[in-house]
Amino acid sequence: VKAPRRILVRTQDGESYPVVVGRGLIHALPGLLEEHAPAHRYALVGDRRVMELHGGAIRGRLSEMGLQVDAFDFPAGEEHKTLEQWSRLIHALLDAGFGRDACVLALGGGVSGDLAGFVAATYMRGLPVVQLPTSLVAMVDSSVGGKTGVDVPQGKNLVGAFHAPRLVVADPELTGTLPRAERSQGLAEAVKHGAILDSGYLADIESDAAHLLAGDPEPTVRMVARSVEIKAGVVSRDEREGGVREILNFGHTLGHGLEAASDYGLPHGSAVAMGMVLEARLGEELGVTREGTARRLASALQAVELPVEPPAQLDIGRILDHLKVDKKAREGRPRFVLLAETGRVDPPGGGTTSWSRPVSLDRVRNLLSTPWSAAI
Amino acid sequence: VKAPRRILVRTQDGESYPVVVGRGLIHALPGLLEEHAPAHRYALVGDRRVMELHGGAIRGRLSEMGLQVDAFDFPAGEEHKTLEQWSRLIHALLDAGFGRDACVLALGGGVSGDLAGFVAATYMRGLPVVQLPTSLVAMVDSSVGGKTGVDVPQGKNLVGAFHAPRLVVADPELTGTLPRAERSQGLAEAVKHGAILDSGYLADIESDAAHLLAGDPEPTVRMVARSVEIKAGVVSRDEREGGVREILNFGHTLGHGLEAASDYGLPHGSAVAMGMVLEARLGEELGVTREGTARRLASALQAVELPVEPPAQLDIGRILDHLKVDKKAREGRPRFVLLAETGRVDPPGGGTTSWSRPVSLDRVRNLLSTPWSAAI
Repeated sequence: VKAPRRILVRTQDGESYPVVVGRGLIHALPGLLEEHAPAHRYALVGDRRVMELHGGAIRGRLSEMGLQVDAFDFPAGEEHKTLEQWSRLIHALLDAGFGRDACVLALGGGVSGDLAGFVAATYMRGLPVVQLPTSLVAMVDSSVGGKTGVDVPQGKNLVGAFHAPRLVVADPELTGTLPRAERSQGLAEAVKHGAILDSGYLADIESDAAHLLAGDPEPTVRMVARSVEIKAGVVSRDEREGGVREILNFGHTLGHGLEAASDYGLPHGSAVAMGMVLEARLGEELGVTREGTARRLASALQAVELPVEPPAQLDIGRILDHLKVDKKAREGRPRFVLLAETGRVDPPGGGTTSWSRPVSLDRVRNLLSTPWSAAI
Repeated sequence: VKAPRRILVRTQDGESYPVVVGRGLIHALPGLLEEHAPAHRYALVGDRRVMELHGGAIRGRLSEMGLQVDAFDFPAGEEHKTLEQWSRLIHALLDAGFGRDACVLALGGGVSGDLAGFVAATYMRGLPVVQLPTSLVAMVDSSVGGKTGVDVPQGKNLVGAFHAPRLVVADPELTGTLPRAERSQGLAEAVKHGAILDSGYLADIESDAAHLLAGDPEPTVRMVARSVEIKAGVVSRDEREGGVREILNFGHTLGHGLEAASDYGLPHGSAVAMGMVLEARLGEELGVTREGTARRLASALQAVELPVEPPAQLDIGRILDHLKVDKKAREGRPRFVLLAETGRVDPPGGGTTSWSRPVSLDRVRNLLSTPWSAAI
């Protein structure tokens, strides 16, 4: 067994927290908690599905080692990442007598991380939280960086806070039960990390695709560790999205528009995959992105079984409507992170003001109206 | 007219924000916002009573200067500092289309500052907030330091976040409409600032008492500025209450117990006044606090028309029950910040672990059972 990988993420207040990546690490959780997040009591928070799969073993392991732990669950699914579930969890912790000397363990995929993280961010003005991601997308992306929050009828993640974890434990063995399609979804953000900062990593994902989709442990550990390194590097330079962190939005401006126009029927990874190809095409059209980049991305995405073109039935008007009200839009013009080439973003103005560029809605409408096959 | 006082508060992430104190400063608000909190739109949030008093003038002044401002109100009173009002305000801002380029203006007393501050802390993972205190207690205490939150049935301020403001504008002219009894309440925290860190300031409050209670502008400006200086100094050294910030809890462990045992019928300032005298007596009994300190504090508190002994009808058992579950209690023993003498706290262990000391419930019961007149 290889030693676990340990990657440090710096936070805005000059502290840092480790992300540890390794097979079977979850068995070492008691020691990791004692080192990085000692507490009088632990609240293990996760959705019912993940609690059934892993909750018992984790509780047993912590209790065995003398740690006091109570479990709190909520119904599985993004539709439960709500203010109501957040409030219910807060009151459950209060009724159980959790004090400021407690720590929250957020177990599960992105929904658990966001919801349990927001509980921790707001309970008695902030409890420490440890992220225990169980899905690939949570390991490579959402568990790192401190974003927490819930969805409201007006949109996703509109209520929330930045709340850095004390520790992230990514054990790829926990992903053993994931279906192939869900692995594929998780790889969209890994492809993005390669696309914005490391073309060699993009090539590795493409050549390892079959193993990654099959859930082979060693390539999975390598992939998670490399993605975490890339994301940690970005977040350490800009925790609160005032600067370079914006490049993590590559593929997401259009990705979010596609998701919204599909009434969230389109999975996030698929939407981001299509968004990356579209935004690479946009960059090529504008002369910002090197020719052939969209093709290069599409090839990697297809290798990990992700779609590269939006379904024809999506309403272009609805996509554009969403772009106008995007959190990053200014004066009705959406903003895009555009690649210079695979693995590199050159910010306009040298990154002094923003890492994204405004693009007119007319140009985006034109892009969406031109099927790719026709465009080449 | 004297130049406004400007006091800087350092935050944990190495930034800082100014608290400006001066008569008529509210008229200079547009320029102050442009300098310290430029935004595309402003959300002026306050309770209905304070909005009726000051909302129109502030909106008018900002609009005149070309700033876009919308007003959002909530019913006056601590009983409305709830998750329900917070959620209602969040949804109102979302429906009004507020984006990340907005800024919240928290207008009013402590309730507005806490509630509007928590809206800002959680809206799209954090909007900038400017505190515009209108009560004495908000000016000298709650608007500075970044604490935000709401009450829940289980207790006060149990849901919330630390969210430092960009700017605090304290204009004592806004307190012109306060009744004398409310001024008196606000002076409790000012006395506390003198008690823990500046005996000369305590003497000034006592000698200026008649003017402060009458609302005379110049002594009020001086008092607010000195209190803000003291609180800013403490918060700048320890924003998140891991260390010296704990001394701001002097008088509050027992004060909170008295409030709870009175079902919050006792006003906060009165409860803290009684709490300070009780905790000074406790310190004297334990040989930590110089003899005569409780008498010295009582004299200053009586000068500003605050009570110094708890009403006889309060149930001592209920006070003790509350102390056991206090956020700072450890293993059922409440902790107290004990003065060395007026204007000085010597932390046990040199402040390396904590600025407070555990005291047995038996000793506290004995203190509460001994009327002060009998104790001397």
